[in-house]
Amino acid sequence: MSSPKVQLLLTGNELMTGDIVDSNSAMIAEQFKELGLNIFRKVTIADEMSLLISEINHMAAQADILIINGGLGPTVDDLTAQALALATSVALKEHPQALAHLTEWCKKRNVQLNKPNLKQAILPEGCEIIANNQGSAVGFKVNHLGCDIYCTPGVPRELRTMLTEQIKPEISKNLPNELITDVTRLQVFGLGESTLQKMVNEQLPDWPTDIDLGFRAGMPLLEVKLTTNSQQAHQHKPYWQQQISTLLGDHLIAVIQDKPQSLAKNVLHKLAAKNLKITTAESCTGGLIASLLTKEQGASHSFEAGFVTYSNEMNTTLLAVNESILVEHGAVSEATVLAMAEGALSRSTADLVVSVSGIAGPDGGSKEKPVGTVWLAWGRKNKLKTVCLLLPLSRSYFQQYVASIALDLIRRELIESEELAHYIQERQVN
Amino acid sequence: MSSPKVQLLLTGNELMTGDIVDSNSAMIAEQFKELGLNIFRKVTIADEMSLLISEINHMAAQADILIINGGLGPTVDDLTAQALALATSVALKEHPQALAHLTEWCKKRNVQLNKPNLKQAILPEGCEIIANNQGSAVGFKVNHLGCDIYCTPGVPRELRTMLTEQIKPEISKNLPNELITDVTRLQVFGLGESTLQKMVNEQLPDWPTDIDLGFRAGMPLLEVKLTTNSQQAHQHKPYWQQQISTLLGDHLIAVIQDKPQSLAKNVLHKLAAKNLKITTAESCTGGLIASLLTKEQGASHSFEAGFVTYSNEMNTTLLAVNESILVEHGAVSEATVLAMAEGALSRSTADLVVSVSGIAGPDGGSKEKPVGTVWLAWGRKNKLKTVCLLLPLSRSYFQQYVASIALDLIRRELIESEELAHYIQERQVN
Repeated sequence: MSSPKVQLLLTGNELMTGDIVDSNSAMIAEQFKELGLNIFRKVTIADEMSLLISEINHMAAQADILIINGGLGPTVDDLTAQALALATSVALKEHPQALAHLTEWCKKRNVQLNKPNLKQAILPEGCEIIANNQGSAVGFKVNHLGCDIYCTPGVPRELRTMLTEQIKPEISKNLPNELITDVTRLQVFGLGESTLQKMVNEQLPDWPTDIDLGFRAGMPLLEVKLTTNSQQAHQHKPYWQQQISTLLGDHLIAVIQDKPQSLAKNVLHKLAAKNLKITTAESCTGGLIASLLTKEQGASHSFEAGFVTYSNEMNTTLLAVNESILVEHGAVSEATVLAMAEGALSRSTADLVVSVSGIAGPDGGSKEKPVGTVWLAWGRKNKLKTVCLLLPLSRSYFQQYVASIALDLIRRELIESEELAHYIQERQVN
Repeated sequence: MSSPKVQLLLTGNELMTGDIVDSNSAMIAEQFKELGLNIFRKVTIADEMSLLISEINHMAAQADILIINGGLGPTVDDLTAQALALATSVALKEHPQALAHLTEWCKKRNVQLNKPNLKQAILPEGCEIIANNQGSAVGFKVNHLGCDIYCTPGVPRELRTMLTEQIKPEISKNLPNELITDVTRLQVFGLGESTLQKMVNEQLPDWPTDIDLGFRAGMPLLEVKLTTNSQQAHQHKPYWQQQISTLLGDHLIAVIQDKPQSLAKNVLHKLAAKNLKITTAESCTGGLIASLLTKEQGASHSFEAGFVTYSNEMNTTLLAVNESILVEHGAVSEATVLAMAEGALSRSTADLVVSVSGIAGPDGGSKEKPVGTVWLAWGRKNKLKTVCLLLPLSRSYFQQYVASIALDLIRRELIESEELAHYIQERQVN
């Protein structure tokens, strides 16, 4: 049996106007690649009924699996259900399962089920519902001209969950055994794609051709994927996974089991395991580190307080940073981040601290301390470490990267790493 | 004369595998939008000759203008020229103008003109060259089945220059005057897509069919787009824009001039204009409000300090919230958010404050105060206002929504709004 042919149909005026860049189709392609399936053709069209219908007919005739993305929302320009009904010549009907989902969804959120919402339960008669655990619009499946058509929501978070939890398992069940793909994903922080590729080329020159080494750059974590498609490759994969893990050293955060874990979650787990608490004192990251920590469920076990001091005066008032330090060394200095860290520790009950002060830009740089300069202090009371890095990035990237580095430094502290992180080797100044 | 129909064909294996996100098509769409032309259909395929030929024939038959992007390079998987020759039944031939460009290109860079490079001069006989000032591969144009086909390079920089300097001016020359599209975009906070659609249906039932009303849901802002395509529609648009603006009331943040503005930026502008400073005291949002503010360039003019108090103890220590208040009313209470707000004001030099305390979940709720309950206090010293809302959302959405509401309450304070926000009407408890 050969691989099923997969096509993808994206709908939405916003995809045609250039207002947004389509990232859903890359996500869908990646997920299918994990099943060993390639999407060979993709069509994107505006929200227009006649276009949709002719496209559905044309594509269903050419493919075994057709994924339709978008057009499930409550507004008049969401046409997918209606187009499917017309293309397959069935009636549109209120689907009890979809209605139950919507009712439950609105009830949970304490909102009224209104008429536009109700539209999301009107589906082609006889379709199969695909659960949406993240949003109001259910997905649905119909078979047309021998092609399985899966209709999925345009909201990326909803799409991702629906693919991983519903659609992939179902398609996978029907794939012949020899097509089974095995994917291992590693989470990495502090190494870029090209650096890592170079390291592999140089230090693991015998990397086998039947283990596909893929990268997915995310902010801040890089995902490294080892994919195998044959029994033989499955068998020697553990050896090569070990090899690359050794190469990654403490840059390897975790092997992804189910869902990727954030750096903050990783740190919070380690803190909880050791029964330790952390506090933050942030200037240039402006609350981002605290926000990343408290985004995670259960953060309160290990995080009680954070300080955002965005001016010299507030460093003095809130963290008792001596004014003379600020005058003598400036806000972006080793002395200041140390004093901020000490201040935060003494004002809270935390065991560990990380403090940052830097120049996020685009203004505020000088020849001596250009935009992108950042001092960090971290660790335990009386055992604080410091580093100064130069990260000449855009304001938003700078803030995200610095916040991630702050978390990573705490993580390395908690695993008692003695390795020098790549970002320190590459970016350290002073 | 009606608008020419434009379609887009993208080729490249890398576009199908999910390894890269296609940003070229958004660029092409934006450039065409400036001509008042919408791309109504876009197809993306892998590098495969038979697929390419059948797609070219199919698309040329449906469109007046077809842009093909990619496949002009020197390698064997660059198939565009050959596919065009086969589709249009002409021979491939070395094109003297293309050869001259390549020769010049190599000479300038002091490199040998090799065989793979030379391939870039072998083009369908009779095609028209489109100059490439940024790269080695020229573009070219052929007419097939009455459709003008423009073949363009995949490298974004080369594509952009070719579009702006060559292709757009040529297409523009042939366009009739009356075909200009006019788009107005409004930024809205606090009204969802379906609520707004319902409001328009009910309160503006005569909404004209020639003003397209589109929505783009973002978190936290909703974008409302009014698009017109005819002289007559352009003329009555201001009237309808006024009607919908009145309907939106203070939920309308701004008319988007160039780029959309964040809610935080909007608040910072208003603060700066009045020379006011703000501080934040955050429990359940854990630094997110401070982080949203400091993400914006120039935040330091209006923001000096923020407090993240994630435990009762820290509320007492950092913000001098009386312990008896916490004992008597609990951390999620009107008395506590008021005390937090007063504490933050007295510890900083700020004029305005917003404080939040709530239950982000998934744990920590009770029958009396379920997950999703949040108290907010905001305003100026001695003039603080409070509200309690129930927002039973996922943890991450809850935090984002509460942070956005906090910013919006400050925005409404700054414009002295006397309207009750929709989210208060819908979600208020106590």
